[in-house]
Amino acid sequence: MSNINPHTTYKLLIASKYADDYRTLLEAAELPGLEIVERDEIPANCDIVFGEPSLIKPILPGLPTVNWIQSTFAGVDPLLDPTLRRDYMLTNMRGVFGGLMSEFIIGYLLLHERKILQRLEAQKKRQWDATLTGTLREKTIGLLSVGSIGAEVARTAKFFGMTVRGYTRESEASQDVDQYFHGEELFAFAQGVDYLVNILPNTSATRQIVDAELLACLPAHALFINVGRGSAVDQSALIQALETGAIAGAVLDVFDVEPLPSEHPFWSAPNTIITSHSSAPSFPKEIARVFIENYRLYAEGQPLNYRVDFEKGY
Amino acid sequence: MSNINPHTTYKLLIASKYADDYRTLLEAAELPGLEIVERDEIPANCDIVFGEPSLIKPILPGLPTVNWIQSTFAGVDPLLDPTLRRDYMLTNMRGVFGGLMSEFIIGYLLLHERKILQRLEAQKKRQWDATLTGTLREKTIGLLSVGSIGAEVARTAKFFGMTVRGYTRESEASQDVDQYFHGEELFAFAQGVDYLVNILPNTSATRQIVDAELLACLPAHALFINVGRGSAVDQSALIQALETGAIAGAVLDVFDVEPLPSEHPFWSAPNTIITSHSSAPSFPKEIARVFIENYRLYAEGQPLNYRVDFEKGY
Repeated sequence: MSNINPHTTYKLLIASKYADDYRTLLEAAELPGLEIVERDEIPANCDIVFGEPSLIKPILPGLPTVNWIQSTFAGVDPLLDPTLRRDYMLTNMRGVFGGLMSEFIIGYLLLHERKILQRLEAQKKRQWDATLTGTLREKTIGLLSVGSIGAEVARTAKFFGMTVRGYTRESEASQDVDQYFHGEELFAFAQGVDYLVNILPNTSATRQIVDAELLACLPAHALFINVGRGSAVDQSALIQALETGAIAGAVLDVFDVEPLPSEHPFWSAPNTIITSHSSAPSFPKEIARVFIENYRLYAEGQPLNYRVDFEKGY
Repeated sequence: MSNINPHTTYKLLIASKYADDYRTLLEAAELPGLEIVERDEIPANCDIVFGEPSLIKPILPGLPTVNWIQSTFAGVDPLLDPTLRRDYMLTNMRGVFGGLMSEFIIGYLLLHERKILQRLEAQKKRQWDATLTGTLREKTIGLLSVGSIGAEVARTAKFFGMTVRGYTRESEASQDVDQYFHGEELFAFAQGVDYLVNILPNTSATRQIVDAELLACLPAHALFINVGRGSAVDQSALIQALETGAIAGAVLDVFDVEPLPSEHPFWSAPNTIITSHSSAPSFPKEIARVFIENYRLYAEGQPLNYRVDFEKGY
């Protein structure tokens, strides 16, 4: 830390649901030169903002001197609004969500394969239900995008003995993907997979990528899981596939509009589970660790981890 | 297979719920010298029996020439009855259940940590429930016995970032166990674990090992999972721990008497899930594979895999 000018102070605004937790964690880290400002004031001259993109968006115009924003989320859509300033460094959260998303996906796949809800219904009637269940072993999972999160999902799927397909723009970085598909190979990628998992970020190229034609490639026993972005899905096509039994079910964590409005047909679509954007919970301790590491780089004038390219959107 | 006497024929009786599947699979394997006899006849002169211990037990006295019994289950309790013959080779099923039991355990741990049932209740009311969930990461799991199944559970728990404790007679074979405990270290083993999982076979040394004193070592947020044998549990002590909230819940797959009688208090004990001996489903294809490999050894006069020691009981 010898490069840090001892006379420099950086004013940090925390804009988060967990602001109190983050303040405690950052104060405990005793970061040199860091001054945490009070949320109530929202001082115009703060240098750094740390928080949720949706909470930062409305206050961004009032923060003309901000130089770096560290998102507590992986997805930074609210800050990609083209009417907003882009004259600062935006970094997002990476490396902490892959394991949590993998837990989520495995949890819901096992809920399905091991007939957990059916067993619970039988228990209510005090019925011994020894119906043979399924297994994850030898199933095929298709991952729409294989970035840092997708690579961790692929590693977990391999651990459980699945065959892993990955659909990416061009990257073939993860060794845990058995077969890669790109560009026009989308339908070949989806053909016959047991589980289709969307992890794509929100970019114009991937809007409504999960449409009627893609869903038609899936077998009737297939499950669709969306932990990426709601905009990746053609909602009426998905609802139709669920209502006609063209696919076996869906686990939907993300939506175009959140919270999902109470009148939305997804809530009561057949074999559909709504998980309210909880697939990768942000545990303050882990999120704070990423900020702390990035702050040390920032204070030393070094390049930050996890810079977001405003054009690419990730 | 050159050692096989082409004139020798071994008569096989299949005593299983899945007898038709097994017959098809074994016929497809075209095993030299194997003759599958009809179940209806139960010929007194059969050499080999392949099936479920509970189905074999009643017919065993009528099979004086049987030389080898291959169980389709890991647990062979019914055949360990001391009033029964022991003048044959008994082999049990191993190597196929570890992965399936791991899926089961991870599935129910994630059901709990990720608040899956709470989310489903919220969905019925069309409520967006983004309550922060838990994770498996950094939890401590205690495994009562670390044989081939326990080792696979340990490997899976490590994959998800858990700390693994193992309680064994003396073996410390699995590298995925962080800390081993033996003999009188039982309470130290259980102290403070988040999840206690019983995988013990039914032996006199382990009867009612999960008693009031052991349960008292667990924190109030602990889950108990029993995929070993029902006899390992002091039932009233467990029910009391559940009713008083001394532990957070139980997932019970095995019982002293199966099917669990409909009047049994376990069915409605608080935070208790009854899974009707389904933790490690016997998929005929995988079970048949073990028989086929053992049959080849048998026909060649070589030692069989997975011999059960009648005295030890496993």
